[in-house]
Amino acid sequence: MIGIYAHFTIQPGKQTEFEAFMTEFMTKVKATEPGVTVYQLCKNAKAEDEYFMLELYADQAAFDAHGKTEHMAALGGTIGEFLAQPPKILRGPAVF
Amino acid sequence: MIGIYAHFTIQPGKQTEFEAFMTEFMTKVKATEPGVTVYQLCKNAKAEDEYFMLELYADQAAFDAHGKTEHMAALGGTIGEFLAQPPKILRGPAVF
Repeated sequence: MIGIYAHFTIQPGKQTEFEAFMTEFMTKVKATEPGVTVYQLCKNAKAEDEYFMLELYADQAAFDAHGKTEHMAALGGTIGEFLAQPPKILRGPAVF
Repeated sequence: MIGIYAHFTIQPGKQTEFEAFMTEFMTKVKATEPGVTVYQLCKNAKAEDEYFMLELYADQAAFDAHGKTEHMAALGGTIGEFLAQPPKILRGPAVF
């Protein structure tokens, strides 16, 4: 199992638009990628412009496949419209 | 649904002991708290002494109940033995 943590700081006032965009994106991932077992965006309760994404992949194959999907290719080109700075991302194997 | 991200930097050389401790802890949470839907420690692939925890709670009641368990009370007193610095924790509601 592989875990990802991604932290997003978005541009002021883009919360509603960003949440709608990411909701559509999460829906696609959940509907088409059974090996992605967790894919959940949360809003930082202490900072209006911050979000964090929790992701778990069943195995390396599921992780690799996710990176090659059409929706991930499209994401790269569009998520930047919302971000105030590059995302911070951590990746690593699950313990246990 | 509520999400938590926790980031741990541990003391040098304590990886094996920390992983064993956290594995036992995760096992208890998964076995006794059905409202905790995700509770997964991962190891940062890029830093030997860093770990991150991904957590999802079904609702506020599950989150509140988790904080009042015996195992959480015990954790506060023991996890400090492994940490090099206080954990960084983010909390917030799930989007969608």
